[in-house]
Amino acid sequence: MINRLVVIGLGLIGGSLALAAKQRGLCQTVIGCGRNLNKLLPAIELGIVDQVSADWELAVSQADLVVVASPVDAVEAVFERIAGSIGPDTVVTDVGSTKGSVIAAAERAFGGLPENFVPGHPIAGTEHSGFEHALANLFDDRKVILTPHAGSTPAAIEMVSNLWQAVGSDVVQMDSATHDQVLAVTSHLPHMLVFALMKMVADRDDHQAVFDFAAGGFRDFTRIASSDPEMWRAIALANDKEVIDLLTSYQAQLSELVERLRDGDGDYLQQLFGDAKRARDTHLVKPDE
Amino acid sequence: MINRLVVIGLGLIGGSLALAAKQRGLCQTVIGCGRNLNKLLPAIELGIVDQVSADWELAVSQADLVVVASPVDAVEAVFERIAGSIGPDTVVTDVGSTKGSVIAAAERAFGGLPENFVPGHPIAGTEHSGFEHALANLFDDRKVILTPHAGSTPAAIEMVSNLWQAVGSDVVQMDSATHDQVLAVTSHLPHMLVFALMKMVADRDDHQAVFDFAAGGFRDFTRIASSDPEMWRAIALANDKEVIDLLTSYQAQLSELVERLRDGDGDYLQQLFGDAKRARDTHLVKPDE
Repeated sequence: MINRLVVIGLGLIGGSLALAAKQRGLCQTVIGCGRNLNKLLPAIELGIVDQVSADWELAVSQADLVVVASPVDAVEAVFERIAGSIGPDTVVTDVGSTKGSVIAAAERAFGGLPENFVPGHPIAGTEHSGFEHALANLFDDRKVILTPHAGSTPAAIEMVSNLWQAVGSDVVQMDSATHDQVLAVTSHLPHMLVFALMKMVADRDDHQAVFDFAAGGFRDFTRIASSDPEMWRAIALANDKEVIDLLTSYQAQLSELVERLRDGDGDYLQQLFGDAKRARDTHLVKPDE
Repeated sequence: MINRLVVIGLGLIGGSLALAAKQRGLCQTVIGCGRNLNKLLPAIELGIVDQVSADWELAVSQADLVVVASPVDAVEAVFERIAGSIGPDTVVTDVGSTKGSVIAAAERAFGGLPENFVPGHPIAGTEHSGFEHALANLFDDRKVILTPHAGSTPAAIEMVSNLWQAVGSDVVQMDSATHDQVLAVTSHLPHMLVFALMKMVADRDDHQAVFDFAAGGFRDFTRIASSDPEMWRAIALANDKEVIDLLTSYQAQLSELVERLRDGDGDYLQQLFGDAKRARDTHLVKPDE
């Protein structure tokens, strides 16, 4: 059992982790830290945390585990602020969607990578943000990727792993570069594509008619465009190289498609669509679909 | 009440319409026509149709309403085959996803546009195909677009309208060019984008890792890639001009995004993502989401 768990940044992820830990009795005390204490108070009423604190330094000095659940562009400032206060045995992890940028931030803020630092990323979320939308089962059957650095201690990795497993997740480890490549494909690129599409549609004179006749497929396809713009600005910039590479490859794929459409090349189209369908049906369709 | 309803092409849409009409008692007899009688027989057992027939000429000669629910590239051959047999009072409609191409096909096959011909398109479906996946409530609260031509009679329009309303749909009329533009945006373009993405991912060496770490957002986003490749080949070719125009605009939008990412222009990104989110939240989020 963890004695004191401190979550800095009570958004959807931080809030859901706190809530899941509390509901499952995994910690003696769960403390939520944020910038604005008044905004945090409802988290106590909602049963998400036991305490809230604006004195992060005090909170982390007494913590067994600190989870930094701030947006990826705010992580460095958080690390800087807590760097002088964390105890020698306090383990620090994060939940950021990009891992290379978080590790670089830690290196700068801590002046090297602490052995008790284990970067992490739960592959979970909804298009909503804020602890008001926290879900105790958000991490059930989800994957959590840990990207420990060369100096992360086995004990620190184990503590972080245990917490995620105890809230229902499947924990895997990989290096941060692989993480950032894989997530660029499954998450960052799709968000860019849908944001760009929604913007293009919204700018059309006939956008009202377009939205009026959008069916369920379009709603599903564009769901991720309802995600938090500020968070995605941070993610896009934090993983810009991978995202640019993928967008460039994707544009080449689209250019080929346009050429083939111009040529009326039905065989190419059917092959492309069939390969795509086969890939999705093989890898992404759940048994109940 | 319709005495004899003939559905040619018992796919997901034709099958669901037949099933909905039968379950609601809207017709005396529902007859399903297809190429392969053996494959159609289960539709009787499933309660989707009363009869099946390979003698389309006979079936349509006695029909009050003929619904051509074949893929859009097969519609012209169907029209040609039934052109000499439909009675003077038989109303003909279709369910094709493209309307300009269907109207052109009718003009050629019938030697002009029959006054009892009312093109239509229910904005409904799933990623599955075939009458085995038919759903009696597929059209509940869905929009059906009719694109009557200048000579379509009010009585014919009314008969087709009434059927769709009776299965739960909201019927609207527009011209076929507007239909093809709007649907290119809400349906044809998204399918192209997702097929292209899935193909790109499937071709990666690390595609297994990518699919392993795909979360719910990616599954939702790519759902439409599980659609029927043959049907989509036909739709893409039937509405190629609109689809090419949109893909070209979209590529310009992506090029701008890549430039801004290269420049690290966070303000542009946040504005773009925010505009996109606002458009989706305003127009596409249901009250219960």
